[in-house]
Amino acid sequence: MKVPPELISFLKEENRFFIATHINPEADALGSAIALSMALESLGKETIVYDRDSVPEFYRFLPGYERFRNSTSDLQPSHFNLILLDCNILKRAGIEGMRFNYSAVIDHHKTEKSTTQGSFGDIRWIEPEAAATGLMVFHLIKDLGVPITKEIAINLYAAISIDTGTFRYNNTTAEVLRVGAELIEAGVSPAYISHSLYETWSKERFTLLIMALNTLEIIDGVAITYVAKEMYKKTGANPEDTENFPNFPRMMNDIKVSAFYKEIGNNHWKASLRSKGTMNVAKIAELFGGGGHENAAGFEIKSDLESAKKSLLKALSQGKIDS
Amino acid sequence: MKVPPELISFLKEENRFFIATHINPEADALGSAIALSMALESLGKETIVYDRDSVPEFYRFLPGYERFRNSTSDLQPSHFNLILLDCNILKRAGIEGMRFNYSAVIDHHKTEKSTTQGSFGDIRWIEPEAAATGLMVFHLIKDLGVPITKEIAINLYAAISIDTGTFRYNNTTAEVLRVGAELIEAGVSPAYISHSLYETWSKERFTLLIMALNTLEIIDGVAITYVAKEMYKKTGANPEDTENFPNFPRMMNDIKVSAFYKEIGNNHWKASLRSKGTMNVAKIAELFGGGGHENAAGFEIKSDLESAKKSLLKALSQGKIDS
Repeated sequence: MKVPPELISFLKEENRFFIATHINPEADALGSAIALSMALESLGKETIVYDRDSVPEFYRFLPGYERFRNSTSDLQPSHFNLILLDCNILKRAGIEGMRFNYSAVIDHHKTEKSTTQGSFGDIRWIEPEAAATGLMVFHLIKDLGVPITKEIAINLYAAISIDTGTFRYNNTTAEVLRVGAELIEAGVSPAYISHSLYETWSKERFTLLIMALNTLEIIDGVAITYVAKEMYKKTGANPEDTENFPNFPRMMNDIKVSAFYKEIGNNHWKASLRSKGTMNVAKIAELFGGGGHENAAGFEIKSDLESAKKSLLKALSQGKIDS
Repeated sequence: MKVPPELISFLKEENRFFIATHINPEADALGSAIALSMALESLGKETIVYDRDSVPEFYRFLPGYERFRNSTSDLQPSHFNLILLDCNILKRAGIEGMRFNYSAVIDHHKTEKSTTQGSFGDIRWIEPEAAATGLMVFHLIKDLGVPITKEIAINLYAAISIDTGTFRYNNTTAEVLRVGAELIEAGVSPAYISHSLYETWSKERFTLLIMALNTLEIIDGVAITYVAKEMYKKTGANPEDTENFPNFPRMMNDIKVSAFYKEIGNNHWKASLRSKGTMNVAKIAELFGGGGHENAAGFEIKSDLESAKKSLLKALSQGKIDS
């Protein structure tokens, strides 16, 4: 993985950075942004770390998470250089109205085109083959000559963990494990990260999971589960608590796709798709105006749940699930 | 990790090896034995691979698992040199009556003493700090000068995976990840191994899990779940399918102990306890005539379920759960 020299020059020469990442941030977005902020500040730069949404409770073990702010009302974007992380169009970060001095994009997702312009960013470093943006930021920080502190390492390890299922998905390469090894040497406790990521659920969240699993239907190798709005009230859990819910039905051998629906409005659902092997759910999600990776993708749909399920099953059967 | 030179000489000079591992074998025992057998055979040696028990169905994805035999009636042990893997006394392998020419022990468990003699083995290589016996066998094979084939790599990767929770337990070191990286370069697909280890549940087993989770009660930081006999009928699942069920409630932050009850007879239950941190459930299990490790223990109890729960909660409260 080669860091573009112009990105290094940009970060070394400029002094004020606005680091933004996508809405509904997960550990790759959060950890990458915090780590880069820490690295740049150690070089004497000023950084603002922004996400439209607040840091989910269960990611607040990340050292430096309090750097995140979700308001920009007190600052002038044009005084800052943008670093857009883990997404590649402004809209994904909810900052489409803002104009910055100069902009760099660092992302491992495939390029999205905004409607009014072409690809976004004065400097674009997009590596769809990279397992995580955190992996790219690791190389970037090393190329900047900044030592990987324990706090930076924890953020990057969490970032890489969440996007590789802690080294279980097929984006887990030899290089991913070698970077993991370096981060452990920088002070990360793998058991602490895994505990923080996977074993700190609230009782309410666990109850919501059980409720979601009780909705399980299996149709033609597709496992369908959902969380309707009233379930939040019944359990006391929050919408952000559904993170990782789509992965549970994947435990079953005969499941090719796990589809999880989450009610986000009246007749308005967010669908999360998880697949195994070569079944490409990003292509399915794109049919519905969404996107993502080969084995993890999502989209929104405005319809009642039954129709939403039916249209997905139809799309999947036309896509011939035969991984 | 340094392989004893006398072990290398022994393996190079002798020609006939009986590789044995512990009863109720899991992936570290199985994978280490198969990998070592393959390596020795590539050097022109003869090997017998033995376990008293047969290879569990869900480990039959390991290439070469059919090397395992569980009978010794047609061979003369004294014509063979023993390699005892992943345990360090003959009794753990169920071969305490057998006499071999010469013996080597390769294990990462603490030394057990047999009652009639001291530590067993002419050559003893015990590394309690090693995450897995598979890690030791990896270094051994390299020191023997044998190339790590894809088949050897898959066995060793599975061995290391199972004993580190696929890089999640606190025995996951930088070295463990570096060895993982080398094994990936030798041809392992991490996603295939994780899928084989964790994602091959039957629909019936998953349905039983949901049913068990629906029985969840949380009392004083103790999560209690159970599977009653009629649930097997309802789901079509088997008693062996409850493996790993006690671990799910551990996902909750405020849970100190997860207690899972499985009905094994009329008013007869098997309790499995899982704890986090410093809460020692082996001591609790011992009160009921059972045993185990600090964070994973079990016992049987003859009573109705409600009384069984009450007596456990009483024992736990007297033990003062304050990890």
